[in-house]
Amino acid sequence: MNKASLLWMVTVTCCLAQPGDGARPASTNVPGAAFPALDAGNRAIFQLKAPTAQKVHVSLPQGRYDLAKSEDGTWSVTTPPLEPGFHYYTFSIDGVSVNDPGSHAFYGTSKDSSGIDVPEPGVDFYSVKDVPHGDIRSKWYFSKVTNSWRHLNVYTPPGYDQNTVAKFPVLYLQHGGGEDESGWAAQGKTDLILDNLIAAGKARPMLVVIANGNMPASGGARGGGGYNRAGMAPFGNELLNAIVPFIEANYRVLPGSESRALAGLSMGGGQAFFVGLENKEKFGSVGVFSTGLFGGIAGRGGAAPAAFNAEEQMPGLLTKAKAFNESLKLFYVSVGEQDPRIEPTKKAVADFNARGVRVEFATFPGGHEWQVWRKSLHDFAQRLFKP
Amino acid sequence: MNKASLLWMVTVTCCLAQPGDGARPASTNVPGAAFPALDAGNRAIFQLKAPTAQKVHVSLPQGRYDLAKSEDGTWSVTTPPLEPGFHYYTFSIDGVSVNDPGSHAFYGTSKDSSGIDVPEPGVDFYSVKDVPHGDIRSKWYFSKVTNSWRHLNVYTPPGYDQNTVAKFPVLYLQHGGGEDESGWAAQGKTDLILDNLIAAGKARPMLVVIANGNMPASGGARGGGGYNRAGMAPFGNELLNAIVPFIEANYRVLPGSESRALAGLSMGGGQAFFVGLENKEKFGSVGVFSTGLFGGIAGRGGAAPAAFNAEEQMPGLLTKAKAFNESLKLFYVSVGEQDPRIEPTKKAVADFNARGVRVEFATFPGGHEWQVWRKSLHDFAQRLFKP
Repeated sequence: MNKASLLWMVTVTCCLAQPGDGARPASTNVPGAAFPALDAGNRAIFQLKAPTAQKVHVSLPQGRYDLAKSEDGTWSVTTPPLEPGFHYYTFSIDGVSVNDPGSHAFYGTSKDSSGIDVPEPGVDFYSVKDVPHGDIRSKWYFSKVTNSWRHLNVYTPPGYDQNTVAKFPVLYLQHGGGEDESGWAAQGKTDLILDNLIAAGKARPMLVVIANGNMPASGGARGGGGYNRAGMAPFGNELLNAIVPFIEANYRVLPGSESRALAGLSMGGGQAFFVGLENKEKFGSVGVFSTGLFGGIAGRGGAAPAAFNAEEQMPGLLTKAKAFNESLKLFYVSVGEQDPRIEPTKKAVADFNARGVRVEFATFPGGHEWQVWRKSLHDFAQRLFKP
Repeated sequence: MNKASLLWMVTVTCCLAQPGDGARPASTNVPGAAFPALDAGNRAIFQLKAPTAQKVHVSLPQGRYDLAKSEDGTWSVTTPPLEPGFHYYTFSIDGVSVNDPGSHAFYGTSKDSSGIDVPEPGVDFYSVKDVPHGDIRSKWYFSKVTNSWRHLNVYTPPGYDQNTVAKFPVLYLQHGGGEDESGWAAQGKTDLILDNLIAAGKARPMLVVIANGNMPASGGARGGGGYNRAGMAPFGNELLNAIVPFIEANYRVLPGSESRALAGLSMGGGQAFFVGLENKEKFGSVGVFSTGLFGGIAGRGGAAPAAFNAEEQMPGLLTKAKAFNESLKLFYVSVGEQDPRIEPTKKAVADFNARGVRVEFATFPGGHEWQVWRKSLHDFAQRLFKP
């Protein structure tokens, strides 16, 4: 035991060299890790010590970059400028996909993955600022739906503890496929986005409930089943019969659909579409970020969603637009401008508009990534819970 | 962008095979990962797909085990029974140390490391049970000491939100070297330990403040500097002048040293010893878990702590035992029975006893690991804040 346990105290030396040319360690690095580093132009320098490896590359959403080996067995590469925002990435060492020991890990792509947060010039809506800060509360709840203890996170706004009579509206906010309830708390920076909006008077103080949308009964850990009504139903059951009742019993929240919203990204956008729009008496506002529901991606669960038929999926949506509009305070759709989902999403929104369905639509630069979802939340939260 | 971003949707297939012989995936796995798995005898089966690798082993605190390669490039090993509790571990692929994609990552050993939680037969004090649950709250605070925004976690007991006049005692609880404020929240299971104790009437409802003890001014990310007064002083400054004032301004906590405790593990035990015992007017109870301060480990920061001199390090501790005893409600020391620190710790405790210093001493089976620290917290919390 003694020798083995001493092994754990050996300092990791792979990452202690300093990057040059004004490059600085990424904010997503573990303390003391100099790499990955970003220079002023958002070029990233990745570095890894692997003396016996024959081939190393780094895979980022925007591409794959080969690392070159130096005499001491250190591999490195300087990439072209990276797109702003948070990117999952992975090293491949001789074909084996591994994490970067210099990076913190973030649950996404169905594993705890390395990630790099690339700053966007002039954008600070998700920075830590000198404003009052809310909490993110880690909570256990027992679900009678799954008959198991489950975990969720709840953002409570600044002052929630001090003003013990005030009640607040609630946004239920869902992650994407291969992610979980840590996504909006860590990668999404929900707390900082809301803290900054509330301090500026641009959003109402609200709770944000960040639950785990992966349902064991509906197709395994990635959850959600297919991109259709049946696939999203298990999460709807969990939300309506376990999560909302738990929140309303344990937090000071306002009753009524006008004070409840449901939104999500990608798979979570599909959940928001089906569960939200089928339960408008519960959710007065629905936000659908970057969903593949409208098409633009390969099908999952065997069914390609390319041929989206709004009326078939949500009877009355197109044919009873007036009633739909009157039953909802806000129907919001967003998507990234470089996301393959954008054209089908634009077509769906055009169809909604043509039939008189009131939808607020926004696009943001970026692909199927967190920078678009941070901006979607930032935008959506400002439109929510208006008097 | 399109092709690259679709890459992220490919299901990770390395871990979808099922373990045999009644083995079940470890509780620390990511959802859907069948390996590592544990059988009824706590033998672990590790598995990794690495077709081009020449040599793969897994390093655990209790030893190193070589994996064997099958024809399809899958490496696997079944270990001897593992010791109970949480273990950091790592794969080595041809000499490169990497994470297991099947495991969640836990910040320790100065990186986000794989970890496996091995159940201990008959032990359930840190299991999720049908009892009232508190929160762990993720908080930002601005430190005038470091002139930066820092992050901490706060456990609030069940009922904190409902009974808005009750005030609570506070335990400040520190992690070890190479860890941070996530340690006691994740690996340590502080919330479940306290929830279960409070429900059983075995501990007073209390807040537990889990701060980051790594101080940039005192020797880098692993923090704390040497195992001596000077090395622990920067954290003491942060605790006394930033953390405690923040907590007392924002939470309903009881004033007075009798309602404040400071404890920690390993490096955090050194922080508790120096900062706690030097500030007994602030902290009425001090818990020192598995510290290397008393000896038994190679020195850090250049100074071997083997020759611990209590009176030199803490003037008056041995020579003014009566005053020491009267100024403190509880002085607690614990250590693992297979930890190399045990003999020097026993000697220090014997010296304390010989000089009339009142110390409560406990040992638990295990090495320098979280199972000992979970048991230390479970034991210490029951002795705290007695009337």
